[in-house]
Amino acid sequence: MPSPFRLQRRVEFRDTDAAGIVHFSAYFLYMEQAEHEWLRQLGLSVLMRDAEGAVSWPRVSVRCDYRGVVLFEDVIEIELSVLHLGTKSVKYGFRFLKGEQLVAEGEVTSVCCRMRDGQAPKSIPIPASIRAKMATACPAISND
Amino acid sequence: MPSPFRLQRRVEFRDTDAAGIVHFSAYFLYMEQAEHEWLRQLGLSVLMRDAEGAVSWPRVSVRCDYRGVVLFEDVIEIELSVLHLGTKSVKYGFRFLKGEQLVAEGEVTSVCCRMRDGQAPKSIPIPASIRAKMATACPAISND
Amino acid sequence: MPSPFRLQRRVEFRDTDAAGIVHFSAYFLYMEQAEHEWLRQLGLSVLMRDAEGAVSWPRVSVRCDYRGVVLFEDVIEIELSVLHLGTKSVKYGFRFLKGEQLVAEGEVTSVCCRMRDGQAPKSIPIPASIRAKMATACPAISND
Amino acid sequence: MPSPFRLQRRVEFRDTDAAGIVHFSAYFLYMEQAEHEWLRQLGLSVLMRDAEGAVSWPRVSVRCDYRGVVLFEDVIEIELSVLHLGTKSVKYGFRFLKGEQLVAEGEVTSVCCRMRDGQAPKSIPIPASIRAKMATACPAISND
Repeated sequence: MPSPFRLQRRVEFRDTDAAGIVHFSAYFLYMEQAEHEWLRQLGLSVLMRDAEGAVSWPRVSVRCDYRGVVLFEDVIEIELSVLHLGTKSVKYGFRFLKGEQLVAEGEVTSVCCRMRDGQAPKSIPIPASIRAKMATACPAISND
Repeated sequence: MPSPFRLQRRVEFRDTDAAGIVHFSAYFLYMEQAEHEWLRQLGLSVLMRDAEGAVSWPRVSVRCDYRGVVLFEDVIEIELSVLHLGTKSVKYGFRFLKGEQLVAEGEVTSVCCRMRDGQAPKSIPIPASIRAKMATACPAISND
Repeated sequence: MPSPFRLQRRVEFRDTDAAGIVHFSAYFLYMEQAEHEWLRQLGLSVLMRDAEGAVSWPRVSVRCDYRGVVLFEDVIEIELSVLHLGTKSVKYGFRFLKGEQLVAEGEVTSVCCRMRDGQAPKSIPIPASIRAKMATACPAISND
Repeated sequence: MPSPFRLQRRVEFRDTDAAGIVHFSAYFLYMEQAEHEWLRQLGLSVLMRDAEGAVSWPRVSVRCDYRGVVLFEDVIEIELSVLHLGTKSVKYGFRFLKGEQLVAEGEVTSVCCRMRDGQAPKSIPIPASIRAKMATACPAISND
């Protein structure tokens, strides 16, 4: 898979607010969409159900810095890079481009967890089959 | 106004996702609700329309770290503290409590901007009347 | 419980869009919040987990007619009435008031379902213990 | 333009809720996305700014009936048909397909309005240039 992984999308009306611009929280939904699309292209999913419930990836830390303004109907490109593949977690970096302009950048750290209904997620080592697919897709990153 | 400023709210169903927990992006909506309520209690608003358009507070930097899990119908308390009152910006710190447990903490830096329809926001010095109200509410913080 | 059941709330910034008004879809979140609060006051919940998974209330039919405009920071009152308590479903009517003005009205029909992870919900007769609580709260409605 | 107009999209994680299925309100966002894409392909936009503010299309009536269940990562097809092109409003019909299965259908009536910041939208006759583009795209519908 090319690195960084790229996803284009158009800003939807519901992403905007009464200040006339994209709501700052929407960038986290865009980051998530890029992450989920990257997982799908690896044959994975952010929510993999099994007999015990599901394996999913709650976030432990996220941030976003805003450098430019994005308006309704703008088309933006989201670049996802894997910054670190840990034993239990993955740290992603994101850049948002509107044409040539960098309009935002962010980071998301997701932790591999065993999910059971109505219970708190419990972190687990990334299963070997999942980790192997992720590692293939990001050969240059540091692993621990 | 007491410092930190506190706001209680119940987790709504739309705040959750198919992993059965509160979606990580919802915490930014909670931070925003606390910020807006704090502004209202100062006699201000995050969107103050005037003859030229509006004065509003786009974010330049936000982050959140997640320490515990929050489920549908949980009641959480959001603590807002003003960490820094700058010439053009305000930096807020947030702590999320579920009972005694710290479940998340975050920061938001908002920049005072002149908004005009369909144009990029333009940062401006915080108007004196607004700044005075903010400063009164947070006597101990560093100002520049 | 008084009939109709009433809930007040303030319009949040995320409820608005770039047209400067409350997004039409937000009214469905308001209806849902009133429904869920009504259930809580009956000692029920819209998502009741048990050994088999959960009992919940997916919607089969919803509508909303808009009569007035609602802006950021407006306080609205939501009136919930149970229009029909069926064998497997409940039909709610909603009125939205801004002061004295009727700004919207809507209906939601929710069906009692057995939920199992990753499977389609399956409609079931409303369990007797749930039905009894609902019936007490709405003595004048038609039951079948 | 083909009639009905079709748009495919994948269900995003934020569209789901703790019951494990797509939240009922998300279908209205899907209807809106199809409407906006249809407008774009006609060279129009749901929010057209001009010297006086903007022309936009607030909704006066919406409904949705749910026939099947949609899960995270499902791909759905949204069919938009113009049911009626009135003097001041457009009524759209929507069908949601998951493969061959009809999972939902809905209607939205949007009214052409003059928008001014912080004021209630005011309905206006659909401007001739807009109406002409719409009429071309839906030759068989009833006009008044």
